[in-house]
Amino acid sequence: MKKGMEILSHLDTQGNPQMVDVSQKKITNRTATAQSTVQFPPAIFKQLAKNNFLSAKGSIFHTAIIAGTMAAKRTADLIPLCHPLSLSRVNINIEEKADSLLINATITCEGKTGVEMEALTAASIAALTVYDMCKALSHDIVISQTKLVEKKGGKSDFKR
Amino acid sequence: MKKGMEILSHLDTQGNPQMVDVSQKKITNRTATAQSTVQFPPAIFKQLAKNNFLSAKGSIFHTAIIAGTMAAKRTADLIPLCHPLSLSRVNINIEEKADSLLINATITCEGKTGVEMEALTAASIAALTVYDMCKALSHDIVISQTKLVEKKGGKSDFKR
Amino acid sequence: MKKGMEILSHLDTQGNPQMVDVSQKKITNRTATAQSTVQFPPAIFKQLAKNNFLSAKGSIFHTAIIAGTMAAKRTADLIPLCHPLSLSRVNINIEEKADSLLINATITCEGKTGVEMEALTAASIAALTVYDMCKALSHDIVISQTKLVEKKGGKSDFKR
Amino acid sequence: MKKGMEILSHLDTQGNPQMVDVSQKKITNRTATAQSTVQFPPAIFKQLAKNNFLSAKGSIFHTAIIAGTMAAKRTADLIPLCHPLSLSRVNINIEEKADSLLINATITCEGKTGVEMEALTAASIAALTVYDMCKALSHDIVISQTKLVEKKGGKSDFKR
Amino acid sequence: MKKGMEILSHLDTQGNPQMVDVSQKKITNRTATAQSTVQFPPAIFKQLAKNNFLSAKGSIFHTAIIAGTMAAKRTADLIPLCHPLSLSRVNINIEEKADSLLINATITCEGKTGVEMEALTAASIAALTVYDMCKALSHDIVISQTKLVEKKGGKSDFKR
Amino acid sequence: MKKGMEILSHLDTQGNPQMVDVSQKKITNRTATAQSTVQFPPAIFKQLAKNNFLSAKGSIFHTAIIAGTMAAKRTADLIPLCHPLSLSRVNINIEEKADSLLINATITCEGKTGVEMEALTAASIAALTVYDMCKALSHDIVISQTKLVEKKGGKSDFKR
Repeated sequence: MKKGMEILSHLDTQGNPQMVDVSQKKITNRTATAQSTVQFPPAIFKQLAKNNFLSAKGSIFHTAIIAGTMAAKRTADLIPLCHPLSLSRVNINIEEKADSLLINATITCEGKTGVEMEALTAASIAALTVYDMCKALSHDIVISQTKLVEKKGGKSDFKR
Repeated sequence: MKKGMEILSHLDTQGNPQMVDVSQKKITNRTATAQSTVQFPPAIFKQLAKNNFLSAKGSIFHTAIIAGTMAAKRTADLIPLCHPLSLSRVNINIEEKADSLLINATITCEGKTGVEMEALTAASIAALTVYDMCKALSHDIVISQTKLVEKKGGKSDFKR
Repeated sequence: MKKGMEILSHLDTQGNPQMVDVSQKKITNRTATAQSTVQFPPAIFKQLAKNNFLSAKGSIFHTAIIAGTMAAKRTADLIPLCHPLSLSRVNINIEEKADSLLINATITCEGKTGVEMEALTAASIAALTVYDMCKALSHDIVISQTKLVEKKGGKSDFKR
Repeated sequence: MKKGMEILSHLDTQGNPQMVDVSQKKITNRTATAQSTVQFPPAIFKQLAKNNFLSAKGSIFHTAIIAGTMAAKRTADLIPLCHPLSLSRVNINIEEKADSLLINATITCEGKTGVEMEALTAASIAALTVYDMCKALSHDIVISQTKLVEKKGGKSDFKR
Repeated sequence: MKKGMEILSHLDTQGNPQMVDVSQKKITNRTATAQSTVQFPPAIFKQLAKNNFLSAKGSIFHTAIIAGTMAAKRTADLIPLCHPLSLSRVNINIEEKADSLLINATITCEGKTGVEMEALTAASIAALTVYDMCKALSHDIVISQTKLVEKKGGKSDFKR
Repeated sequence: MKKGMEILSHLDTQGNPQMVDVSQKKITNRTATAQSTVQFPPAIFKQLAKNNFLSAKGSIFHTAIIAGTMAAKRTADLIPLCHPLSLSRVNINIEEKADSLLINATITCEGKTGVEMEALTAASIAALTVYDMCKALSHDIVISQTKLVEKKGGKSDFKR
């Protein structure tokens, strides 16, 4: 049985939300990468690619990267039970692939908990920013997936 | 040709980002609904459902609804080119369906631009909060889709 | 029976939090005044009064007034189900009375809901700021009460 | 004479506010607990208790706990001269007692200054959230007291 | 004698800060433009211009424009006595001139007070962002001036 | 050739913004001082000085100092590629000199990057706050300069 299931079964009887205690954990170097995919109707994607991903609101890539970077730093302010972390690196890159933009966010910190939520938040907000800049073009743009890709430095590493 | 494509072709030559002028638009009552789906491995979903969606961090539903509600109000602070809007309603509900949680966010305002991004941001942050509260259980939880479901009150209504 | 009790008895069966719909309400001019009281041990209060309420961290009154003013503007960001409101006035004054400081916050807006929570938040954060600036002097300083004093412009006026 | 009084008497002549220098202090594990009390008219309290503290706006306890948790993380953004701290734990619980709700907030961090203000801010915002969710029921609900209960890990421990 | 001087002479005796009452003012369409100038050592400016204003941290222009746009929306959160305003347009452009970058921010809103502070805040934060992205190149970069250029829609128009 | 120029020439080919990796850098005690100058028309300055720098909005000095202090703590939230830092001291003082106010902000932290941007942001927001409180008096007030004065604790010290 996976470790988490035990934790769940030890739930206190009230089930109230709490920011769990990490004060006894060691500070380690932690990295996580998450990915959000924004999927476009093929004609729209072709048009955007031809215009170098400039929309009526401006440069899609730069705006999304900056929005994602700023969101990463605000993760603990958005996700109620996340611990505040001092990030030491935020890198976001965007790849074109099959009528989609793949947004990869990689975050690093030295801390007592990992940066998985920071990476997912950065990728999600960058994806929403892409959507915002393109939404006048079609209602058929969707964020087709957001997922953890890799994490290192905690109890156990993970790579999809 | 769709209206948006014309806008794109009229891009100024610099392609710089800008928050577009809505000062001449009329104030109307606007509503939008967006949906994010959090997909679980079947065994994890069954376990959570049996525990009434209480995780080790507390009540998943209430925490996600509040996180999404607060994020809706902060949309213009997260998405760089969004206009600030005075929301008059935020409703978030969560349905269980086929090893997934469907998070529906409906937002209303009276304003010069719509609340599409507010609904998408609320649903996304609520989904990330669900993820955060369950992530100790499995790395195979993903946010499988985030999309606009309906919007009313702007130039043209939309319903998926 | 008071109106609110009926609302409570009409609670939906899920009891999930939501920011209630005010879109059909009329915009009116609304004002509210709230008061927080910070109570000091008599010797400490005498000492502070003699020093014109300057603490080791600086001017207590100005710092508290500004903190309360800024908090008033951030109420909807702090209280999950509050509607965002465009405040048109924030006035905070501080009176000395019987070993206590009485902090009165008066807020005005034109909106669809009242500014009761804004006034209470402003008074509370101003009181916490007073506490912060004096806490090195004694652990026996307390915020002895926070309450609504008056409100006008909604369904029914109130004055304590 | 208490130590703080000396500090006060050493006030610089300008009395300007400043965030005092803690750079030479040691990092220690620090904990603080604060308590806010929300007092209800007896009939209202009975009604709420019968409804399991669900108000027209939703679950009072969960909403207040999350609001307080998020406020704890934003203390340095609200109280002008507080140092930013990386919290490692936030726990908020709510007890029913004699027509009142007692909100206890316990915060832990490893830092150069204590988390007294974080605990007081968390308790205060949770209390304001309770008030917001119940205010339609009566104007006679008050936050009757907010105080430090205990702190550990600084120059001297304190327990009321 | 200028109007403002009279206002000053009518100062209340306490001189406490307050967000002044604008509730009786009419809503009008207001615009303001402010300018910040970032001045570079000539050799650094030449080098940056040759590299199309890409620094080691990325595209200077896009990053500064987005930072300024987001700061405009947060003006009332930064400047204590500013009223919150619903901006309907934010446009920031950057011109090269004589070893300097001139950052022009134009803001529009319909409101009871003007957007002068929003324009100045947007220009200032955009200028600081330019500085941040270039500071590794030289300590002799300065923000040589920040000023109002034009405002319209209030009691009296102004154009420098 | 200055070190920074090399960094620039090693720009990656995309030129996308990123928060650079500081995870391998050592934590050191860092200090920076920045200065903003607010310049007044002589008659206005004389009038303000005679009134002890109280404007119609209240005490200019205290309000500006607190605004600058709070802005220092929010630097990483305003400047997109700044790292979040735990400040251990913020001191802002204001000098009168030749029809100008000189605002000096000194910031200290123990961290992996310096506090240069924090000092510049604190000085800039304090200067904008001074401007806001006096702007009713004249349109000819300008922020005539913002610059780094000194920094210590990084790769190389600097003093203007």
